[in-house]
Amino acid sequence: MNTIHELPTPALLLDLDVLERNLEQMQAKADRLGVALRPHIKTHKCIEVGERQRALGAKGITVSTLPEARAFADHGFDDITWAFPLIFVRLEEVVELAEHITLRLVVDSAEAVRELERTRRPLHVWLKVDCGYHRAGVDPESPRVTELARAIHESSTLEFDGILTHAGHSYDGPTRRDSAAVAVRERDVMVELAERLRADGVPVPGVSVGSTPGMHAVDHLDGVTEARPGNYAFHDYTQVLIGSCTPRDCAATVLASVVSSQPGAGHCVIDAGALALSKDPGPGDAEPASMGEIYDDYAAGTLRPDTRVVSLSQEHGKVSRALPVGARVRILPNHSCLTVACFDAYHVVRGERVVDRWKVWRDR
Amino acid sequence: MNTIHELPTPALLLDLDVLERNLEQMQAKADRLGVALRPHIKTHKCIEVGERQRALGAKGITVSTLPEARAFADHGFDDITWAFPLIFVRLEEVVELAEHITLRLVVDSAEAVRELERTRRPLHVWLKVDCGYHRAGVDPESPRVTELARAIHESSTLEFDGILTHAGHSYDGPTRRDSAAVAVRERDVMVELAERLRADGVPVPGVSVGSTPGMHAVDHLDGVTEARPGNYAFHDYTQVLIGSCTPRDCAATVLASVVSSQPGAGHCVIDAGALALSKDPGPGDAEPASMGEIYDDYAAGTLRPDTRVVSLSQEHGKVSRALPVGARVRILPNHSCLTVACFDAYHVVRGERVVDRWKVWRDR
Repeated sequence: MNTIHELPTPALLLDLDVLERNLEQMQAKADRLGVALRPHIKTHKCIEVGERQRALGAKGITVSTLPEARAFADHGFDDITWAFPLIFVRLEEVVELAEHITLRLVVDSAEAVRELERTRRPLHVWLKVDCGYHRAGVDPESPRVTELARAIHESSTLEFDGILTHAGHSYDGPTRRDSAAVAVRERDVMVELAERLRADGVPVPGVSVGSTPGMHAVDHLDGVTEARPGNYAFHDYTQVLIGSCTPRDCAATVLASVVSSQPGAGHCVIDAGALALSKDPGPGDAEPASMGEIYDDYAAGTLRPDTRVVSLSQEHGKVSRALPVGARVRILPNHSCLTVACFDAYHVVRGERVVDRWKVWRDR
Repeated sequence: MNTIHELPTPALLLDLDVLERNLEQMQAKADRLGVALRPHIKTHKCIEVGERQRALGAKGITVSTLPEARAFADHGFDDITWAFPLIFVRLEEVVELAEHITLRLVVDSAEAVRELERTRRPLHVWLKVDCGYHRAGVDPESPRVTELARAIHESSTLEFDGILTHAGHSYDGPTRRDSAAVAVRERDVMVELAERLRADGVPVPGVSVGSTPGMHAVDHLDGVTEARPGNYAFHDYTQVLIGSCTPRDCAATVLASVVSSQPGAGHCVIDAGALALSKDPGPGDAEPASMGEIYDDYAAGTLRPDTRVVSLSQEHGKVSRALPVGARVRILPNHSCLTVACFDAYHVVRGERVVDRWKVWRDR
């Protein structure tokens, strides 16, 4: 298997040159901002990518599931933040894993603090704060935030790591300027809260923020100690649309074959469906949404202006233009994290040369 | 692990009583209609379910990918239709598999017929016909349909199995009456075409149709030889909405835990996100779409009228009502096929008892 032209489709491609550039640029940005980089590996779920992030200077990693944490712990990653509110029924697994590595947990309720205290273990705990995304996390203006921070800090067993947030609304766009505004607000909310807690007698060792659009857009992070972006390793069409990057910066693509093209139909069918691209509609307002853009020239980073994936069923993708049966297309997905989770492995490429195969640790 | 109350979440549950009833009812319907049942296993990707379908009388199975075909071939399934237009770059894999089992292929172009002939193997071939879904398949009114059928029939190597279609638009609803109309049209188009081809001197051994809504809705299939529904094994909220079944007939559900619930927020967060439910929005016109319904009482088949999953990010699901942290919910997914493909295994249950664990063969 020497080039991408011989690969069976659908195939997940990972361009090593683009990946390396993305990893270097984000580490350089974190260094410039004076924050530790703790990459979220839920995007790539790949040991080899995590090792490259660590070699460049990442301090620990972030995961979204316990199986991700276990896979990386098994491969020598010994400082992992599980950036997801504690799942009570998984407490035994947490305790078991925390005996082998530094596992940092996230809570946003008194119930969760109590659950952790019941274990009587010296578990590391972040308090999750809602900086405006309104999904999870404690309202920074509510008295509960001080109560919870104090409860963790004063616990005789737990180790208070600090306050943590995720500005998921930095994806709401539509432009990089909007992402910047969200990132500034995220930073200011968190730094002000940390100061307030300290003034109230609660030491706050860490202030953790992070999203890829925010990190690309923000100009300083004074008062913040670490950032946890993840998507930057690969980027995707969503990041292009909100101004984080261009199609030249997208490392994960899907190679597909045209399998049906009927005369006069005005469309064709490819072998990349919902189980190769995911059904993420992206952030666009277009109706119907683009379910995947098609590269004209990947190396040049140009997309076909008139051809896109317009709908997906389980294994079929419908492309808006008739292409000949047997032709191959390279697709820029809307959401690389979900696309990657459709596959068992990356075909790692430099240009059109296939140089390696890396496992996607998607088990759950 | 004795009951579902001890299961770590998110978990994929498969109710064995509902599954067995669904399988029996569809086999009985196929028997009554006088057609062979060749279930599409892309819904369950599960050897144990396929074995139950076979034991009840299924004649062979249908798959949508070669990895599915290989997994089932490795477990004794020796008559498999790959109901997907031929992927040229996978021809070697096709030839290899066809040496071990009866592998039936699907084509809708002269190019694909030529590719198959180049192998000089006695491959079984179905001609795919477009009965109105307008995704793939030859227009039954075009002269190409006779040309292609004749080319396969007259091939010195290929074995012509007949004409095959999939009325995917039987999911367009909104009611069972619409599904019935589509199924009637699918049947009539295919039976008329078979007669026309026979009159033109092309013998048509098989006439294959199939979708779950169509099979539930149709009253006779005279002239059809086999049906290939798949979703019926599990059903899902989409089938409920288009009138194929009720929530009591849905065998695959997702168990999730409430992990965050902020006072005054009016919502809560669960640990079932896009990688547990898929981002399939279902067929509803509601805006925003329901991303998953929540059972009030699974055994009774009742859904909570006021509580549903309203949005999904990678691992978080947002529920429209505040429930206490640690509470557990059982979710009826929009699209069981895509939901199942998020998991490695089913927790097989009878009532609340966990009785087995079955692998999902989602490798690709």
